[in-house]
Amino acid sequence: MREIDLKNFKIRTDLITESVTNLKRKEVKEGIFVSNLYLEEKEAKKSLKKPGNYTTIEFTDITDIDNFLEVKKVLKSCLKDFIQSKKTLLIGLGNQKSTPDVLGPKTIDEIVVTSYLEAFGSLEEGFSSTAVFKPGVTGETGLETSNVLKSIVTSFHPDQVIVIDALASKSLDRVCKTIQITDTGIEPGSGVGNKRSEISSHTLGVPVLAIGIPTVVDAVSVVSDTITYLMKQYSFQKKFLQTKKSKLVPTTQVNYLKEDVPVDKEDKEKVLGMLGTLEEEEIKQLFYEVLTPIGYNLMVTPKEIDFTVQKLAHLLASSLNEILHPKLEESKE
Amino acid sequence: MREIDLKNFKIRTDLITESVTNLKRKEVKEGIFVSNLYLEEKEAKKSLKKPGNYTTIEFTDITDIDNFLEVKKVLKSCLKDFIQSKKTLLIGLGNQKSTPDVLGPKTIDEIVVTSYLEAFGSLEEGFSSTAVFKPGVTGETGLETSNVLKSIVTSFHPDQVIVIDALASKSLDRVCKTIQITDTGIEPGSGVGNKRSEISSHTLGVPVLAIGIPTVVDAVSVVSDTITYLMKQYSFQKKFLQTKKSKLVPTTQVNYLKEDVPVDKEDKEKVLGMLGTLEEEEIKQLFYEVLTPIGYNLMVTPKEIDFTVQKLAHLLASSLNEILHPKLEESKE
Amino acid sequence: MREIDLKNFKIRTDLITESVTNLKRKEVKEGIFVSNLYLEEKEAKKSLKKPGNYTTIEFTDITDIDNFLEVKKVLKSCLKDFIQSKKTLLIGLGNQKSTPDVLGPKTIDEIVVTSYLEAFGSLEEGFSSTAVFKPGVTGETGLETSNVLKSIVTSFHPDQVIVIDALASKSLDRVCKTIQITDTGIEPGSGVGNKRSEISSHTLGVPVLAIGIPTVVDAVSVVSDTITYLMKQYSFQKKFLQTKKSKLVPTTQVNYLKEDVPVDKEDKEKVLGMLGTLEEEEIKQLFYEVLTPIGYNLMVTPKEIDFTVQKLAHLLASSLNEILHPKLEESKE
Amino acid sequence: MREIDLKNFKIRTDLITESVTNLKRKEVKEGIFVSNLYLEEKEAKKSLKKPGNYTTIEFTDITDIDNFLEVKKVLKSCLKDFIQSKKTLLIGLGNQKSTPDVLGPKTIDEIVVTSYLEAFGSLEEGFSSTAVFKPGVTGETGLETSNVLKSIVTSFHPDQVIVIDALASKSLDRVCKTIQITDTGIEPGSGVGNKRSEISSHTLGVPVLAIGIPTVVDAVSVVSDTITYLMKQYSFQKKFLQTKKSKLVPTTQVNYLKEDVPVDKEDKEKVLGMLGTLEEEEIKQLFYEVLTPIGYNLMVTPKEIDFTVQKLAHLLASSLNEILHPKLEESKE
Repeated sequence: MREIDLKNFKIRTDLITESVTNLKRKEVKEGIFVSNLYLEEKEAKKSLKKPGNYTTIEFTDITDIDNFLEVKKVLKSCLKDFIQSKKTLLIGLGNQKSTPDVLGPKTIDEIVVTSYLEAFGSLEEGFSSTAVFKPGVTGETGLETSNVLKSIVTSFHPDQVIVIDALASKSLDRVCKTIQITDTGIEPGSGVGNKRSEISSHTLGVPVLAIGIPTVVDAVSVVSDTITYLMKQYSFQKKFLQTKKSKLVPTTQVNYLKEDVPVDKEDKEKVLGMLGTLEEEEIKQLFYEVLTPIGYNLMVTPKEIDFTVQKLAHLLASSLNEILHPKLEESKE
Repeated sequence: MREIDLKNFKIRTDLITESVTNLKRKEVKEGIFVSNLYLEEKEAKKSLKKPGNYTTIEFTDITDIDNFLEVKKVLKSCLKDFIQSKKTLLIGLGNQKSTPDVLGPKTIDEIVVTSYLEAFGSLEEGFSSTAVFKPGVTGETGLETSNVLKSIVTSFHPDQVIVIDALASKSLDRVCKTIQITDTGIEPGSGVGNKRSEISSHTLGVPVLAIGIPTVVDAVSVVSDTITYLMKQYSFQKKFLQTKKSKLVPTTQVNYLKEDVPVDKEDKEKVLGMLGTLEEEEIKQLFYEVLTPIGYNLMVTPKEIDFTVQKLAHLLASSLNEILHPKLEESKE
Repeated sequence: MREIDLKNFKIRTDLITESVTNLKRKEVKEGIFVSNLYLEEKEAKKSLKKPGNYTTIEFTDITDIDNFLEVKKVLKSCLKDFIQSKKTLLIGLGNQKSTPDVLGPKTIDEIVVTSYLEAFGSLEEGFSSTAVFKPGVTGETGLETSNVLKSIVTSFHPDQVIVIDALASKSLDRVCKTIQITDTGIEPGSGVGNKRSEISSHTLGVPVLAIGIPTVVDAVSVVSDTITYLMKQYSFQKKFLQTKKSKLVPTTQVNYLKEDVPVDKEDKEKVLGMLGTLEEEEIKQLFYEVLTPIGYNLMVTPKEIDFTVQKLAHLLASSLNEILHPKLEESKE
Repeated sequence: MREIDLKNFKIRTDLITESVTNLKRKEVKEGIFVSNLYLEEKEAKKSLKKPGNYTTIEFTDITDIDNFLEVKKVLKSCLKDFIQSKKTLLIGLGNQKSTPDVLGPKTIDEIVVTSYLEAFGSLEEGFSSTAVFKPGVTGETGLETSNVLKSIVTSFHPDQVIVIDALASKSLDRVCKTIQITDTGIEPGSGVGNKRSEISSHTLGVPVLAIGIPTVVDAVSVVSDTITYLMKQYSFQKKFLQTKKSKLVPTTQVNYLKEDVPVDKEDKEKVLGMLGTLEEEEIKQLFYEVLTPIGYNLMVTPKEIDFTVQKLAHLLASSLNEILHPKLEESKE
């Protein structure tokens, strides 16, 4: 088999959880995991990520109203470590005409905007001054997003900036099910291969909080994840399902991920042949080389993305509104 | 009858044709009128307008494709006096959620944007560098539009700025049927009573062309216009329809405006009583005082506004595209 | 002055309150009026309306949340006289692309639909079986709306049909501020001059409730209303504002409609001349003849129609949902 | 390795090209392939498809305007075998709120509707009578789509019905790049696992043409396709890239699909181990069993779906318009 050259392989992810290996996840509620990380300068370089604080929330469902409220509670408690009720500019990145990219703009549409009230001296207690902005995408506006934002921050001079964006993931199971919060800023479009200038406290001169949710994943990741799952299922079945009892359980109903049975190296080579001799990153690189020349390394998004993005935007906006305007939270009690 | 106090009466119009009386209109094509005006400093003060060049195009219909193309031809020839094919920032003012206000944003959506091509050195001959921006409205963004625009002009440094906005008219017959082009800039929302800072070459530091089309009119104007028409019809009928022949013509089919029969002062008082003794501006003031305390001096818009705004936006955008990018025009030939 | 021929004048209204004169309004809450009418066959013919029950709710504001809830309470209590929690087909008439016409479709979009649950036998207690339909307009679909509805009723066989539509009013002050409920059905587009076949219990074979809100008014009505107000204000000022005290009150702040001061016939002729000798309907006919030949008898809608229609649709949908699915109401308690 | 049970595996495809093996494709223009098939009763049963005529058009790109026009020419010539310029009802299936499902409704929005002109006797020569309908989806309307359509056909009695729908594919490379035309009708949602009653000439009583384009694909297919490509690339490289010359060509730029190098059985087992011993359908079944229990056998759609669906709808609508109304085609000449 030909040599795998990892140098050229572009890692398509915006998620710290996919760039750093030794992350400690804590299950804070049933099915909701939170991990906090301070990425040191040294480590940051290795992972191609910027140094700073990263909080990641992982969940499985927000379509159910009870689950939604549980995730919202966790999200608000995480956000409180990063932002306060003070003069804030909220920015929704992304193309409003593209459903998987519309998370930022849709969140912005639900933010309670008050700064014009402050201008009239009629901002009530319990509300902070907020303004919002949807810069669109450079391909449609012709304007460099980071420059536009710099100008606007200069003229509005907020105490903090909050940027919301749809991200790219490199694993299927994180799409629409992970929220990443970081004080390191964001490089819009970096996850899907478009390099733009960064949006961060360095470039804007005020604290910048970036909130992102992956809504797309590339085909390569879908494939390599499935290969990984195949081996996990194989190992799980080898360990548990050889007994008589387990035979009764239809295989398609067992969530083999709940038990993290280690995959045996020999099994991997037996089941997957030469493919099984490769490391995960090498497998990704291989599939990248298979799909790219024929034009099939698409970024894909779940079929239900319209409804999911709507719900996620509501989750972010309602949480942000209640933190920036504590009065809104009280009035619900 | 009580005294009419004209001091408090706010003239709700953005149109120069409604502020200046001695405008010379020229019928350039059947049913299409153009007037050019250089408003001197002195006169400007009187009319509460800014000094500079104003071109007004009036037409009756653009739903018919032939009429559309005739109006477009006239519009393009007028625009060519103001703008050139060079680095341009186009700005669509107005609230995207409000149909009568969406003219600017909808026009922007059809502009051919090229500045990112210039950045890559791949801007073809026959195309100029264009970028676009939709600032939204202060009530929704919390940001002061003129400040935001200043920042963006500073960072993009265009050679010229073109601002497109929906205007307010004070006559029913101009709504959606007049295009005003001026190099004096614009004060967004000034026509409907919201004072915002001006957008002009003074504030932005580069030539600013403002293109506006009235899409709303206030109820007072609808009423006072109708009173004026009533007298014009009366005078027309008195002159022409007393003969036997004309009796055959149903009155509802005669366009009495085509013949500008002067209204006799005595007739006016006979037909309208005390109301007929008032000047046009006094009548407006009177109706303003009648409708305002009961909350009915609404700004209104024609029922078909969704379709009309769509067509007008296409008229503006296609004209601007062909002037800014002459290649587009050639390729159609 | 020429003779006014009332025979040709088309009354542009869908509202019973504008067709019948002796309606008894009752103020059920501050600023909210309800009138109930059973229109007898004989009277029906005179007013060009169909015989049956009409309930009209008039209010002044629903933008304030407290007012919204008050109006909703009244609306629900009125609706309960007409509909029950049983198998229902809800129909939203109107063109989705035209803002003033979108009330029906927008209401439908918020209805809780359950009939497919019933098909699976999983309809909970406290919910009734509901289905919805947006037929569009004949000009866009090419299908005759009443025929399509007949077919669908035949195949779904509901116990009752509820039709929601935007109406035309002939008075400025009712636009977006009146809800008409009737068991006589509806003739879509009849208010704006498009004759289509009727939608009623006669044509559909099941009880049909029509709920309508006027969103447009014609220019003639705006003008004739203003003339009426002018005289009311004149009479009010004559009676009350001659005293020293009232001079302090700026005239533009007095709501002269609160006191229904009768208009003196002589005053009317003095103030309005020959115009003042005409009856209200004759004045309308006159303005109709003035505006029609020059193409200015437009139907107009308030500038804020996008926001108002949104709120009205929410008012109707939330009320209907809670009546059709009583469980929804309980769960809020 | 455990036994693969193919009985339970649901084939998620609406495409005949994925159900029938011996299809003859003909390259009618560069990069555009057409296949015609008459599926006999006997074969139909085997492939779970209905007997009748199937035409499939495959292409690689329609974003380029020249390619668009080439594909349109082919599409129109195929459509002409199925439909004529006569009284037609066009139906756009699918959920308007879901981007990958909006192909049908968006196509309908561009159809030139004329049946109301016919009613007025003013249908010009060169135009046929057309009406359109967007039934929505049962989950949102509560109405059974096939029943609603039956009712409407009964009341409109068209000569032919054309149904447009977004389909599901089971291969990545057909998504948004295949048009299937069939006179066998359609079972809406069957491709994504929702069983609804069929829409066909049997149920509607008039000829029914179904036009579909796949917009979604399931994760299982993405993975199994990639495995297939891996082996094709391996075989290609083994045959061609061992020579000195070909070493200069970067592997990621060679389209190995152009040469259909047969995959050696031994190679497959060497490269893929036990996985390599399975047939394609068995591999799909295996991945189905791997992804389903952990909830990751998602249906996915390309990230750019908003823009692609827009273009495809325009392709279908403009082709249908020109066939149903030949005058439109002439007037372009």
